Order: sequence, then C-alpha cells, then structure tokens
Amino acid sequence: MRSLFMAASAALALALPAYAQEEPKGAPAPSEIVAAAPKTDWVAIPAEDLLVMTLAPDAQGKPRQVVIQLMPAPFSQGWVHNIRLFARAGWYDGISVNRVQDNYVTQWGDPNYDNPEATGKPKPLPEGLRVMTEADYSAPTSLITSHERPARNGMQTHRPRGDAYAEFTGFVGGWPVARDHQRDWPTHCYGMVGVGRNYSPDTGSGAELYTVIGHAPRHLDRNIALVGRVIEGMEHLSSLPRGSGALGFYTAEEAGKRTPILSVRVASDLAPAEQPAFEYLSTEGDTFATYSEAIANRRDPFFIAPAGGADICNIRVPVRRVADAG
Amino acid sequence: MRSLFMAASAALALALPAYAQEEPKGAPAPSEIVAAAPKTDWVAIPAEDLLVMTLAPDAQGKPRQVVIQLMPAPFSQGWVHNIRLFARAGWYDGISVNRVQDNYVTQWGDPNYDNPEATGKPKPLPEGLRVMTEADYSAPTSLITSHERPARNGMQTHRPRGDAYAEFTGFVGGWPVARDHQRDWPTHCYGMVGVGRNYSPDTGSGAELYTVIGHAPRHLDRNIALVGRVIEGMEHLSSLPRGSGALGFYTAEEAGKRTPILSVRVASDLAPAEQPAFEYLSTEGDTFATYSEAIANRRDPFFIAPAGGADICNIRVPVRRVADAG
Repeated sequence: MRSLFMAASAALALALPAYAQEEPKGAPAPSEIVAAAPKTDWVAIPAEDLLVMTLAPDAQGKPRQVVIQLMPAPFSQGWVHNIRLFARAGWYDGISVNRVQDNYVTQWGDPNYDNPEATGKPKPLPEGLRVMTEADYSAPTSLITSHERPARNGMQTHRPRGDAYAEFTGFVGGWPVARDHQRDWPTHCYGMVGVGRNYSPDTGSGAELYTVIGHAPRHLDRNIALVGRVIEGMEHLSSLPRGSGALGFYTAEEAGKRTPILSVRVASDLAPAEQPAFEYLSTEGDTFATYSEAIANRRDPFFIAPAGGADICNIRVPVRRVADAG
Repeated sequence: MRSLFMAASAALALALPAYAQEEPKGAPAPSEIVAAAPKTDWVAIPAEDLLVMTLAPDAQGKPRQVVIQLMPAPFSQGWVHNIRLFARAGWYDGISVNRVQDNYVTQWGDPNYDNPEATGKPKPLPEGLRVMTEADYSAPTSLITSHERPARNGMQTHRPRGDAYAEFTGFVGGWPVARDHQRDWPTHCYGMVGVGRNYSPDTGSGAELYTVIGHAPRHLDRNIALVGRVIEGMEHLSSLPRGSGALGFYTAEEAGKRTPILSVRVASDLAPAEQPAFEYLSTEGDTFATYSEAIANRRDPFFIAPAGGADICNIRVPVRRVADAG
C-alpha cells in the first residue's frame, strides 16, 4: 500500500485525502473543514480583480492559463491601477517569462528591459501610469490576528508564538498581512505577485511582475510592492525550467526557454461567458477560524505532534473556482 | 536597464549581484559576506554523507544529477543507516519520481508501492533495515540560537522575534534546528529530504523519500523523519511537471511523466576521481554569525526596510562544491 504521507499532504493541499476509507478515525483535516463550509462563508471575487494571463501552449501543445487575483484596498492600489492599465493597453501581450530562480521567483516582463542579455529596444510605456512611494508599501488596516479568532470547540490551543518578521500576523479581507508599529502590509507568501523595481526611490510601475515559487522571502515585505496572488495555474509558472544565468535569468543560449505571454486580460473585459469566477473563504468567518486553528494543531489521523502554531504563509486562504461561472 | 529586484535576489541566491558596478555603495550583501569567508570557516562534508542520485536524462538528453547530504548525528541516524543500505543494495536503482505536488513535495520510490495507481508487485526490501520510533524524530543537542550569536559590528540588531513552530530555532553542525522543552529537531525547510511513512507507529524505512519544493511545511516537523538535504541539482526535482492526480501523484495516463531514477550511490563508494566533494560554512563561526545577522537586517543597496529578523528557513546554510574534488 502507499505511504500515508499522502494523507498529510492531502489536507495541506486542500484536497480530500485519497483512500479516506483506509484512514483511522480522527479529527477532520483542514481540507474537510473547508469542504463543509456554508455557502455564506464564501466571498465572490470581483471580475475587475481577476487577471487572465495566457501563456504559449506547452511542449505537448497543451494550453497554459494563469489567473491572478489583484489586491484590494487599502493595499497597493496605485500599482493595481497601473496593472489594469497595462493589461487594457495590450502592453503585456507578447512579453515573456525571462527569469526563473529556484526557491525564489518566476519573473516576466519586456525581454528588452527585464533581461541582462537585452539588445533590443524596450517597449514604450503607456500614458497615465501612477508613481507610488515607499509609504505605499504598507497601510493601517483592521488586521484580525490569529489569537483574536475564536478557537475550535471554544478551546484556544493555537499559541500565537510569533513571527520572525513582524509583531503580529493575521488576515485582512482574505489576504495574509503582517503588522509592526500600527502599519500593516501584505506578506510575500508562495504564489504572491509583486512588482519589480529599480533602486529606491523607484517603486516600479507594474510593467515587470514576479511570483514567489519557493519559501516565503519575507525580507522583501515593505521593500517591494505586492499586488496580488496566483489563484489558478500556478504550476505553469513554478515548474518552468530554471535559468542558468545570474539570478535565474535565461542566458542568450537559453532564449528559447523564455515562455511567451500571449495575452493578459482583466476578466471583467471578457465576454460574460468567458469570464472566470472565483470565491475565497471569508477570513472573518467561523469556518476560517476553525480551519486556521486546525492547521496550527493538526489532529487528523496522520499527525503525532501538533505544532501548536502556524506560519502566516502556511495558513493558505482557500480560493475556489465557481463552477457556474459566466 | 534591468530591474534591480535582481540585486536583492542575487544576495538571497548567494550569487554575486550582476552589474555590481551599477549599484549604489552599501553594506555587503549576505552573498558577499560568504564569499569573503576565510577557508577555515568551511567544513568538509564526509563522502559517506553524500548520496549521488542520477536521474534519466531530460527531454533534450542532458544528464540530471542530484546530490543529497545525509544528516549527521544526533538526528535520524537509524533512517540514514537504512538509506545507505538501500543505496548499497542497489535497491533505489530503477525506482522513479511518482509524485510532484506544487508548493509541497517531490516524492520518489517504488512505483508499485508509492503510487495510488500501482498494479505491479512491490520490490522486496533488503535485510538489515532498522525500525525507528517516534522518539527518534527529535534529540537533545547543543543548539546555537541566533540571539546567542555575536552581532555584526558588536551591535545586536537581530531581534529574535520567534517562530510559529518552536520556542527557539538555530543551527547545529550546519543544520537548521528547532527546540521545544529541551528537545531539538531538524526543520522542514526547502530542499530538505524526508522519509515517507504509513500511519503511526510506522516511521518509514527510507525506501520512499521526498524533498520540500515549496514553503516550509513545518507542521511535518516531529511527524516525519528528516534525513538530509539536496545540496546540488535541486532544480531537477523542483521543476518537474506537477502530477494531476490526488496529492500530485501522476495518474495512469501520466505514467510517462514519472522521472526514472537510474542509480543512487554513496559517494564514498565511487572511484576517488568520481567522488564529488562539498563543504559547508560552519554555523559556529564568525562569518555565519555576520551572514545570518545581515540576512535579518538587509543593509545592501536594494533594501529600504530591514526586517529585523529572519525565518530559520531563510537563513540558508551555504554549501559549495570543492573544485579540486577527487
């Protein structure tokens, strides 16, 4: 029979454990808590906040689509404005993935700008881009920290032991957030999308974007703007061949490995029938409180030693595609 | 010109920043601190602790080799004994990568055992395997925590804010370790290698191994044995196509995606000229103290807001190949 290490990962992956009938009885896994959430705990994501990025088909000719959820107020709205502007101007069409650095980031943009081997002329930027400041990397919010949440069965067993990067961590409107000195900022978790920039005071325009494909590089928090997260098709960005050039850029010899980005569209601009629809599990609801506490104290059958805590980036906010979209 | 987000990643990647001449003057990046380490700060890794895993060549016919450093005492030595035994019996030769789950693990073993679609007969296990207990998941050590280390310039700016999974974190003999109640255990950081198991009290034999390819699943600490880490060729495991079956297993239709493992050898069993040689930066030395403090308080030019702390899994112990090996 197979290793039941599978059972543990099933929960983390928010998939129902395979062969559940083989498992000893135990507390529900986080994935099962989410599966049992009432419809009222799910929040629709506005189509205006969804970016549909179409990559060139893979080597077998299979289509590759990535869906990115843009970050809501109060965070990064100037950059989000720019990203919608780039998408609506068709500026992203024809750019490529130029850098894939293992355990760090996959980065895409204009290969004649975002590329040490660039020889051609960069694309001119569209009019109307906003210029943001370092102050915009954080904002005050109504952060809900894990220890403020009601614990499961009324029992508070999730000891908020702290975070290496902030005084508090928690969630705001479905996003992982950290806090110091009453300023809050989104955290660089796996799959989060950020904005490449030059040296300070430059804060980046949104022309060049990256997503985290490894352990959360939290030292980038408050140093680079985060503007969203990949909610579908992450594997199309995380499993790309790593670049052998400095910092994971593809060298001139590897130019053929650059994945072309055919188009990037704001979902609300697509025909209704083509608009994907997604919803996230409210981070203010009881289900999320139970879910996050269960992640911090795994009691499902595979586990021996519950951790008694969880890293903000391991409490992944459940996001699902709404079947009857369009 | 390129985005200098590259400069930030250069340091994290322990590569010298590209185009350093373009950068403003600033404090050295962690990578530069490591590059300047005296030879005496580097510790040779015994060939007996190195596993050389040869995968089938890639689609372009390029060879793929992965080097794994086995964990030294006091951790997991029974499983490490088994892994050397499996390797020396040739048991691993001809197994395959059967599971790749995004942001979680790449897992390899006998496809007739470690695979929900298995139809064939599992390989018989070799004689002499040790059976370990849950108590072996941790051990007391002389953990050196970050706040015990001398700070750079005599100034202690690295506030050890804590960890969501343990009372303390630190390093023991070149490995990331966590502590609770005077028991210490290695941590599930990116690239660490662990042992698949069935339900407790089974602790796994070492026949089935996995490596972490995403954000550190620290909830697995003390629930599964960690036996080593990938020190070269990680990209050959992290960039594999994700499986579309439950938990990232390749389905029957995807059987062709399973990467064959041609052989796994203990380096000390290879001819001297074929033995790879590696060394790690001593985690007890001054350079490592300066390096880890610099990671917690990035002062190199790209950074605006030093974090004031660092996650144990973001303080990656530098390991390098010794050029004049054999």
